[in-house]
Amino acid sequence: VIGIELHADWEPRNGYVATGAEQLSRRVNKGSMVWRNPQIRPAVVPDPAPGEHQVVIEIAACGICGSDMHMYECDAEGYMLYPGLTRFPNVIGHEFSGRVVESGSAVRSVRLGDLVTAEEMQWCGRCRSCRRGLFNACDNLEELGFTVPGAMAQYVAVDEKYCWKLADIAERTGSEREALQLGALVEPLSVAYNAVFVRNQHHQPGNYCLVQGAGPIGLASVALALAAGCALVVAVEPAVGRRRVAKELGAHYVLEPADDLDENLLHLTRGQGFDIVVEAAGAPTLTLTPLERCLSPNAAICHIGRSNGLTPLNLEAYQRRSAQVYAAQGHAGNGIFPSVIRLLASGQLIAGPMINELFSLEDAPIAFRRLRSRQDAKLMLHVNL
Amino acid sequence: VIGIELHADWEPRNGYVATGAEQLSRRVNKGSMVWRNPQIRPAVVPDPAPGEHQVVIEIAACGICGSDMHMYECDAEGYMLYPGLTRFPNVIGHEFSGRVVESGSAVRSVRLGDLVTAEEMQWCGRCRSCRRGLFNACDNLEELGFTVPGAMAQYVAVDEKYCWKLADIAERTGSEREALQLGALVEPLSVAYNAVFVRNQHHQPGNYCLVQGAGPIGLASVALALAAGCALVVAVEPAVGRRRVAKELGAHYVLEPADDLDENLLHLTRGQGFDIVVEAAGAPTLTLTPLERCLSPNAAICHIGRSNGLTPLNLEAYQRRSAQVYAAQGHAGNGIFPSVIRLLASGQLIAGPMINELFSLEDAPIAFRRLRSRQDAKLMLHVNL
Amino acid sequence: VIGIELHADWEPRNGYVATGAEQLSRRVNKGSMVWRNPQIRPAVVPDPAPGEHQVVIEIAACGICGSDMHMYECDAEGYMLYPGLTRFPNVIGHEFSGRVVESGSAVRSVRLGDLVTAEEMQWCGRCRSCRRGLFNACDNLEELGFTVPGAMAQYVAVDEKYCWKLADIAERTGSEREALQLGALVEPLSVAYNAVFVRNQHHQPGNYCLVQGAGPIGLASVALALAAGCALVVAVEPAVGRRRVAKELGAHYVLEPADDLDENLLHLTRGQGFDIVVEAAGAPTLTLTPLERCLSPNAAICHIGRSNGLTPLNLEAYQRRSAQVYAAQGHAGNGIFPSVIRLLASGQLIAGPMINELFSLEDAPIAFRRLRSRQDAKLMLHVNL
Amino acid sequence: VIGIELHADWEPRNGYVATGAEQLSRRVNKGSMVWRNPQIRPAVVPDPAPGEHQVVIEIAACGICGSDMHMYECDAEGYMLYPGLTRFPNVIGHEFSGRVVESGSAVRSVRLGDLVTAEEMQWCGRCRSCRRGLFNACDNLEELGFTVPGAMAQYVAVDEKYCWKLADIAERTGSEREALQLGALVEPLSVAYNAVFVRNQHHQPGNYCLVQGAGPIGLASVALALAAGCALVVAVEPAVGRRRVAKELGAHYVLEPADDLDENLLHLTRGQGFDIVVEAAGAPTLTLTPLERCLSPNAAICHIGRSNGLTPLNLEAYQRRSAQVYAAQGHAGNGIFPSVIRLLASGQLIAGPMINELFSLEDAPIAFRRLRSRQDAKLMLHVNL
Repeated sequence: VIGIELHADWEPRNGYVATGAEQLSRRVNKGSMVWRNPQIRPAVVPDPAPGEHQVVIEIAACGICGSDMHMYECDAEGYMLYPGLTRFPNVIGHEFSGRVVESGSAVRSVRLGDLVTAEEMQWCGRCRSCRRGLFNACDNLEELGFTVPGAMAQYVAVDEKYCWKLADIAERTGSEREALQLGALVEPLSVAYNAVFVRNQHHQPGNYCLVQGAGPIGLASVALALAAGCALVVAVEPAVGRRRVAKELGAHYVLEPADDLDENLLHLTRGQGFDIVVEAAGAPTLTLTPLERCLSPNAAICHIGRSNGLTPLNLEAYQRRSAQVYAAQGHAGNGIFPSVIRLLASGQLIAGPMINELFSLEDAPIAFRRLRSRQDAKLMLHVNL
Repeated sequence: VIGIELHADWEPRNGYVATGAEQLSRRVNKGSMVWRNPQIRPAVVPDPAPGEHQVVIEIAACGICGSDMHMYECDAEGYMLYPGLTRFPNVIGHEFSGRVVESGSAVRSVRLGDLVTAEEMQWCGRCRSCRRGLFNACDNLEELGFTVPGAMAQYVAVDEKYCWKLADIAERTGSEREALQLGALVEPLSVAYNAVFVRNQHHQPGNYCLVQGAGPIGLASVALALAAGCALVVAVEPAVGRRRVAKELGAHYVLEPADDLDENLLHLTRGQGFDIVVEAAGAPTLTLTPLERCLSPNAAICHIGRSNGLTPLNLEAYQRRSAQVYAAQGHAGNGIFPSVIRLLASGQLIAGPMINELFSLEDAPIAFRRLRSRQDAKLMLHVNL
Repeated sequence: VIGIELHADWEPRNGYVATGAEQLSRRVNKGSMVWRNPQIRPAVVPDPAPGEHQVVIEIAACGICGSDMHMYECDAEGYMLYPGLTRFPNVIGHEFSGRVVESGSAVRSVRLGDLVTAEEMQWCGRCRSCRRGLFNACDNLEELGFTVPGAMAQYVAVDEKYCWKLADIAERTGSEREALQLGALVEPLSVAYNAVFVRNQHHQPGNYCLVQGAGPIGLASVALALAAGCALVVAVEPAVGRRRVAKELGAHYVLEPADDLDENLLHLTRGQGFDIVVEAAGAPTLTLTPLERCLSPNAAICHIGRSNGLTPLNLEAYQRRSAQVYAAQGHAGNGIFPSVIRLLASGQLIAGPMINELFSLEDAPIAFRRLRSRQDAKLMLHVNL
Repeated sequence: VIGIELHADWEPRNGYVATGAEQLSRRVNKGSMVWRNPQIRPAVVPDPAPGEHQVVIEIAACGICGSDMHMYECDAEGYMLYPGLTRFPNVIGHEFSGRVVESGSAVRSVRLGDLVTAEEMQWCGRCRSCRRGLFNACDNLEELGFTVPGAMAQYVAVDEKYCWKLADIAERTGSEREALQLGALVEPLSVAYNAVFVRNQHHQPGNYCLVQGAGPIGLASVALALAAGCALVVAVEPAVGRRRVAKELGAHYVLEPADDLDENLLHLTRGQGFDIVVEAAGAPTLTLTPLERCLSPNAAICHIGRSNGLTPLNLEAYQRRSAQVYAAQGHAGNGIFPSVIRLLASGQLIAGPMINELFSLEDAPIAFRRLRSRQDAKLMLHVNL
């Protein structure tokens, strides 16, 4: 069977000493310190067989994530941009949907033929963090499409406990095809949901919300903020194509970054400031550092974007505002996936406009090249849609 | 100037001993123990003058609340139904909007001509509860239209700190008249908001919500639950007129009370149960006691309806569900009024269909008579609309 | 090997129709509807072998819980008092500690020789509730000592994910024996912790706390409230023996139930009321129903005691106080077990005085008989202590 | 009457343009941009008369705060170090206790002779923030001892709503003198309480807590963390005198800052990391920036220390830990003052060892000079103790 495989060379940077375990497993916490010359290509990959608690899913659609792009792109020295947990070669892809076509002997919660999506975070359920319900901070985390085979392929095997059914979306839309496309958006929507409604404990309907960056996660935040009753949703984004999608999703205002942004933003809130600020640009030094005057008292800053290096924050200004910063990663637990599916099934969460275009699995390299410009919101691969 | 005054006879029930302070002030905590033969009538009432921090508001519209009805209605022995804090004779009415026409010397936050609504809870700001920010539990509470002159009148005087501007609603709707009508709904919407989003600390977008009773507070809960991203909103209500309004507001299902309701409700949630249950019927013995099987794990029961007597609850069933009961009263503090106004101004909160008909101030008695049947959602008095 | 086995007759009450699954598995949700003539006796029981993720624990000590007593005691018709999930015959006992003596092939988190205790709630980790982190509401719950073999025995097998190490307690006390005795208290302490600090989201240091009932869970609540900075801890209990232990644990006041209790309690709080009320008497009709005047604004009622039937609550009074009722069951997740162990290890949580006397495994029937009078706090069986 | 007055020259720094309002009122938001050559001296100051809702307090004791020191100390160019809201000349001092000796006509909550302390944050109770209960973010804040006359004097006038009685402490200690000394610690204890238990919403008994900096606020954090059931409390502090007090208060470990601190701290937590980190050193670049590895999953960083400039934070590391930063300022609202008083009155909060020495009012300059070395924890002025 066919899958999109990412290869890279194991060449630890000067000064980076891989641990023995890393050398043995080729599984590293800081990908950008080790992997060089990444390349993707369609390849013949093993046909997965389900473990006792696993199902095999025939992939219908799989979106391309910003993280996928960061694994594919390199810096001036040829090192992969993505700074996180990785093992290569690996089939990538983790924002997906499909049909269950095979299931292990102990599987009880899904059936053959079910339309499903699945969590990318493969939390162990046994470590200290998992036992606290903090699955996103699992001590033994594997990540589908990063350290274990992913979903830009014809089939993928996952534990039933990561699977969530899409039947309610199909019922409302009356279209399996549409349900499967929306289903492939559940993962990025869940990443935003985790940051804005789970990590942030201050959301109240009527809040004013600022979203910095209108890539997929930023757009997901816009869509969710509107569905959850934010009374003002403002997106800031340099790419015109993405600004257009933010507008289509219903953002009240969509702005370009500018020097006097702080002042303009404050004006849009009628001087009251934003209650929620979502950093989804991966550039907190640009998006958070200058943002002082337009925070509401008790403001919550939800930091989702990934970035290397240190972010200088004016904590004194935050103190005057009784503000807080929530650092967010992942989408597991807390009813996040099923809540997003319910919102899509009820029609209250409008996410369809995020999808710009579908490509076949074989054309994945074309889609990756196109996304380099960061004008599109979401490009999606269709497999058996 | 003209106002709707409520008179009643001071005749403490057998066994009820009024305190000396109650006898002196005619201000009692349990109205239904003392007041007999209540009657309302248009009357000439004093023209209010503003205190240092007060404004005088020329009333535009004033809704009739369930509490107003309970002050007007009596039991078989002629005692007022309303069980709470009251002093009579008094001008009633507390769900209102109007224009600021006069202001005290120290007033800074509103100006002449501003369209405003105001909180009914007149919290002192100095007691132990107020200093904790728990204004709804103020130790020295006065209530506009209950213990101090209310808004079914041409003018009312209130402290600026209870006032909230309606300009943003007027700007969006392009109609001062519409803004003032919606403005008179802010108080009941805020009572629901307090219960569902402030007292209840478990709301997440995607929740399933059941609303027991579709009177004004139940309908406000329906409207807010939809605006806040509840993915399933079910209302239960015996009166056909109110069921119609619940449907117009967007409730996914509107049911009549029935014996096997528990089973049907569970089915609507696909076996998952409700995350939020709003008791807005004032009949918890009928609405909560039988409600065991259709609670989601971690369910929140928001009790707003007022009722005398004891409510038998199956706490063992609640334990199995890790459920909780939040007893809610009032609407003050926590950014509630401004959040409701923001939601109305953004167009995300649809409340207009709650208003069935407008009556002149003089026709208040006709409106009160009509509301005895509890078929209407909200009847509203227009004064200078 | 030897264990304390509980036998009972399968005789569903008139009107109770056991489901097919219940008949097949003899596993029923409502024990008191089905089981008659319960009897306990030391018996030869199977020697457990560890599954892949399991360890076998050699029991050191095992406390007798109120639930154990309720399985042992019957009503006038001979039916078991315990109303919950059960399967018989079964080895009972679930408040225990011991040493790991054997471990499955996949076990990573504990080692042979480790001193451990374990959770009684055997949550599946895969159901909808578990995936939300709500392990106490697991859809597929098994309970050690209720539906699967328990710890009043020489050995018990449990999944490593339920095990927590006691090494830090042993290090502080300098005594393995003391650590193992305290370790057998971790479960009841955790049940109280769950109710007062996890389910209840309003604890702040300086709170005033009332504990109704000074059985083991009530005493655990007293000990924890003191460790967590409650500035006033009052216990109410009819049995003189238990009142004595409450006093030893440090409760500021220990009272007998009385008619005018409400008034006296309010006085102890200097008129301010209690912020936290723990129902640990299993008699909410007696302990909660009359409790209106001594609630602080925003008071939290933590209901842990189990009781059949309906509890009449004055919700109107709760509304005036903005009070809430948290129904609590279990002890799983949320870092509860490790937090209790840390508190015992730091010396801040004083729980030792709860243990009245140790009995050998063979003398379990004597201990059960003695506990019928409910004068003792905790009787504990020593096995290989 | 006598008071300690602080004088400084109005010399805005190059580039700082004072607003018209600032020039008129001499009340500036950023003191360190404007005030030069600060000096303190005992002076004859006006005898305060109480307003309608005010009381006059005869001062018993007044502590010297880090902010007082920062108003007194200057940088190389002679500018005051304190960066916040100030107006000079002014009587300074805001951590105090005393006896009510005069009261305004409307005062109800305190009486002549009452022992009291009072909040320094003079929140207006009418602005948008105050109406949300966010008194610490009051839009019209005045600060006692910063913008209005303070408590290093014989008398001070304050609104009754800022006053809290010390009678319960006096009753427990049996000494008015001791109650008044502890009463003068309530303000700094409340600043710590606000950060650790109100702003931070993740405290659970059993948490591990790290306190960076053992000045008065750090020491207050140590004392509170212990009283609230933190199972491990570690303080880090360069000054030997302050480390000694941290130890006396009961901190489990007290360390000097060092290069490999991160590693050592992680070891003290047995590899589990700290759940709560309090920044009370005012040097977040030194104390937070390097602190990555010793954060527990879901860790809360409570930032109280004041510092100019930007603090570089590794948000990527915080994401991996699901960590959050709470920026904290003030002590008003939320039952903070009364909770601290209750904890002192119950004997659970041990704060007395924080007081190193008492000085007379006239010797204030000596005490200020001595505190320059930052070896003492709390120096306190006695007035009429």
